[in-house]
Amino acid sequence: MNILFIGDIVGNPGREAVKVFLKPLIQEYGIDCALANGENAAGGKGITKEIAEELYDYGIQFITMGNHVWDQRSIMKFIDQEARLVRPANYPIGAPGRGYGYVRIKGKKVGVLNLSGRVYLNDLEDPFSGAARWVNEMRQETPLIIVDFHAEATSEKVALGWFLDGKVSAVLGTHTHIQTADARLLHQGTAYITDVGMTGPRDSVLGVKKETIINRFLTQLPAKFELASGPIQLNGVVIDVDENTGEARSITAIQRVKE
Amino acid sequence: MNILFIGDIVGNPGREAVKVFLKPLIQEYGIDCALANGENAAGGKGITKEIAEELYDYGIQFITMGNHVWDQRSIMKFIDQEARLVRPANYPIGAPGRGYGYVRIKGKKVGVLNLSGRVYLNDLEDPFSGAARWVNEMRQETPLIIVDFHAEATSEKVALGWFLDGKVSAVLGTHTHIQTADARLLHQGTAYITDVGMTGPRDSVLGVKKETIINRFLTQLPAKFELASGPIQLNGVVIDVDENTGEARSITAIQRVKE
Amino acid sequence: MNILFIGDIVGNPGREAVKVFLKPLIQEYGIDCALANGENAAGGKGITKEIAEELYDYGIQFITMGNHVWDQRSIMKFIDQEARLVRPANYPIGAPGRGYGYVRIKGKKVGVLNLSGRVYLNDLEDPFSGAARWVNEMRQETPLIIVDFHAEATSEKVALGWFLDGKVSAVLGTHTHIQTADARLLHQGTAYITDVGMTGPRDSVLGVKKETIINRFLTQLPAKFELASGPIQLNGVVIDVDENTGEARSITAIQRVKE
Amino acid sequence: MNILFIGDIVGNPGREAVKVFLKPLIQEYGIDCALANGENAAGGKGITKEIAEELYDYGIQFITMGNHVWDQRSIMKFIDQEARLVRPANYPIGAPGRGYGYVRIKGKKVGVLNLSGRVYLNDLEDPFSGAARWVNEMRQETPLIIVDFHAEATSEKVALGWFLDGKVSAVLGTHTHIQTADARLLHQGTAYITDVGMTGPRDSVLGVKKETIINRFLTQLPAKFELASGPIQLNGVVIDVDENTGEARSITAIQRVKE
Ligand SMILES: [Fe+2]
Ligand SMILES: [Fe+2]
Ligand SMILES: [Fe+2]
Ligand SMILES: [Fe+2]
Ligand SMILES: [Fe+2]
Ligand SMILES: [Fe+2]
Ligand SMILES: [Fe+2]
Ligand SMILES: [Fe+2]
Repeated sequence: MNILFIGDIVGNPGREAVKVFLKPLIQEYGIDCALANGENAAGGKGITKEIAEELYDYGIQFITMGNHVWDQRSIMKFIDQEARLVRPANYPIGAPGRGYGYVRIKGKKVGVLNLSGRVYLNDLEDPFSGAARWVNEMRQETPLIIVDFHAEATSEKVALGWFLDGKVSAVLGTHTHIQTADARLLHQGTAYITDVGMTGPRDSVLGVKKETIINRFLTQLPAKFELASGPIQLNGVVIDVDENTGEARSITAIQRVKE
Repeated sequence: MNILFIGDIVGNPGREAVKVFLKPLIQEYGIDCALANGENAAGGKGITKEIAEELYDYGIQFITMGNHVWDQRSIMKFIDQEARLVRPANYPIGAPGRGYGYVRIKGKKVGVLNLSGRVYLNDLEDPFSGAARWVNEMRQETPLIIVDFHAEATSEKVALGWFLDGKVSAVLGTHTHIQTADARLLHQGTAYITDVGMTGPRDSVLGVKKETIINRFLTQLPAKFELASGPIQLNGVVIDVDENTGEARSITAIQRVKE
Repeated sequence: MNILFIGDIVGNPGREAVKVFLKPLIQEYGIDCALANGENAAGGKGITKEIAEELYDYGIQFITMGNHVWDQRSIMKFIDQEARLVRPANYPIGAPGRGYGYVRIKGKKVGVLNLSGRVYLNDLEDPFSGAARWVNEMRQETPLIIVDFHAEATSEKVALGWFLDGKVSAVLGTHTHIQTADARLLHQGTAYITDVGMTGPRDSVLGVKKETIINRFLTQLPAKFELASGPIQLNGVVIDVDENTGEARSITAIQRVKE
Repeated sequence: MNILFIGDIVGNPGREAVKVFLKPLIQEYGIDCALANGENAAGGKGITKEIAEELYDYGIQFITMGNHVWDQRSIMKFIDQEARLVRPANYPIGAPGRGYGYVRIKGKKVGVLNLSGRVYLNDLEDPFSGAARWVNEMRQETPLIIVDFHAEATSEKVALGWFLDGKVSAVLGTHTHIQTADARLLHQGTAYITDVGMTGPRDSVLGVKKETIINRFLTQLPAKFELASGPIQLNGVVIDVDENTGEARSITAIQRVKE
């Protein structure tokens, strides 16, 4: 089974990139299942019900989130009813929404687990011991498990990859908005990449107008963020997974740009 | 002129990778000038005079450092005499060593500027306004300038790339130990990559034994770091620079592995 | 000369406390000069022109700020014209406003220097070397200098106190909103306290409704901050300074509560 | 029952202060039970078996720790056998040692719970939900419960105080090494102080030679820490607790200095 995972979709330019590139990618790679991180889909900050539905319409079947999950307050109202969207599982018990879920593809269940790192990020529950527990629960349902580990520090991401090696189909990092060049299969058959990268305006600082961010670093003054214009890019990975064992056969990093 | 920059050399395995791969790379790419980040060259922590000389012997012509620069206290004694080694220029005035220097290649001077980021790192002077000032000084000597920006946050690194675009030959990120897949020429002719990656044991967490780091995340207890064994990798970039204008013509990411 | 410094005034309850307690304190301690930190005066976030004027009306003669200085965007428009308000001096050159200023009291000039810490706070310029420079400049004008060091870490605050001992009349910490019990004269005659404390609703978490903050810690979800109601407190210090030498003769911590 | 809690004992000067002041304090306040934070008792870093015993000899009956708990590696060997010493309870399950324990005083059990904050500190389990759970367990044994909350941020400390108000006898902050001036009874009868302060060399930066720390801030270079000499201080609080209900009747902050 070929699974496509698209990195953090940033605002309108990011959604436009999905619209432009998803169909051709599905064709080219014979994609059976398309997942995406949507934490920046609404103007860079969070997601709304309408925007989630726009992404489903383009062909995305399941959405993961990250530290920006609550940026649009309206999510509090729809996340509990939303079967195709997860937020980091290591929020304290009682947080709205779910940390993992399933998509049904060709008679098989694909499990999607969302985790957040803690280094330089929020004070959530331990993603390591949590992952062990949640993956165990999910493996009652299916050996096909994709983990989106939304984290900043490379040490935490690489360590979680090795920690889950052989227990899940893939550990895919998100959050830094820059794709890393380390996509590979780990020793026990888990596909791994430290960061899938970002889907949105290419000539930018993580999606935002570069002049704004340069100025913020120079002045240390607050600034209104505006998404950049210009060429749009899609960053993602394609993982080929054995449907019966959940083992990954390959991982391929994808970059598409439209000038 | 073809310039090779090798990412953070980690301990003995990293030096071994330099020994094994540097000569063939020089041949293959017609390298005129080989630079490397050596902040982890001594067992993962800092550098000694002997190890710097070992790297020069292998063909490295100039060494940059980072947040681990002072890990081996002996550096305090030799850094001021060491013409081929720089530490982040944005340490406070009066710190031992220099923040930039020059290598003479085929009758041309190549300037090397080392900077440290501040986000999630030490409280140093502003790398942005500092860079503007130091690059200005260096351009009195040469238009060929390579910047090693040793930083954690992708936003800070990408922003500095755009900020120096057209003013230097290359802005090369280091510190995360994971190579990014965004090597490119920016609009005004500066070569850029968010992180060059790490040179050392591949099946590790940033060079360290993976079991150690996983355990540290699970227990939050301190642990003695031991470098990993197994396959070694070299991560680097080759930049082709116009010797007269300093403009970059291309940047190519390099990964070599020896099982 | 008796100088009163009032700690972070939080919103309407904090301004109410100033209104209620300032006049009696001026009487009781024979206050010649009343200063206050106003970074939270506007509903907990920043300050407006109107609110600054309200504080002047109550008898405050000079206002310092902190990390919340830019929370009310309107400050960008009036801060350059505002002779009685300073923001941390270690913002990069070119930031709106000034880092130090003077109040004229009984024919003497009292200098007020505002600094921000860097530990766990913004990436500003070094408050230590900056302080040395700015204090030097100010001493051309007057030996009577009050420093508001707005910082989080006790180590940074205590160290700056010792660093400026004998060079200024007082180093007064702000920002943590909790008064410390270490008001004293240092060896060379500088009055010191790690934190002056907060002026606003007492039964709160730093001014905010306690239920809100407890809930935020329990859920890690964002929350709308609402100032607490109930008893109001004023926290401050009175420093008796020799008008000719600038040396402090005493420092007295003040707490007033109105149920 | 009168309980004395002594703030972070720093090295030899701190132990000397305990030796000098503890007996007279026991007399003066009719102390029934003497507790202390010992995370810096061994030269500023951690504690050894010998030093713990030295403190027991002086009259300390129970020791709490903090982020420095593991600084002396020998603790790993004796902490499990040590009935009178606790480390933060919110370390992951499986960490050596215990998070709470009991002292028997006049036929009553006094429970001592140690917690660590997470803001600006280690990534431990949630101290809020953890506290609720552990306090519940402890209340099966005794209503007399003293909490040492070892944390940096005032917001986290104040919030935990309110959160446990009425459920424990006292919430006492430690870690910043500066005593705060907010000792009080909360609404439901819990005694509270944001920080008890430090026991060790007074004219120092948190116990360390002031020149060392000033220099570190100025140069950003690593430095060997040396404890300061000169006058020694003891910082603590005395809490008078109703032995039958566990309710606090008063809290008194204590400072003693020997020139
Ligand atoms: Fe994102
Ligand atoms: Fe994110
Ligand atoms: Fe490194
Ligand atoms: Fe580094
Ligand atoms: Fe404040
Ligand atoms: Fe503040
Ligand atoms: Fe301590
Ligand atoms: Fe501590």
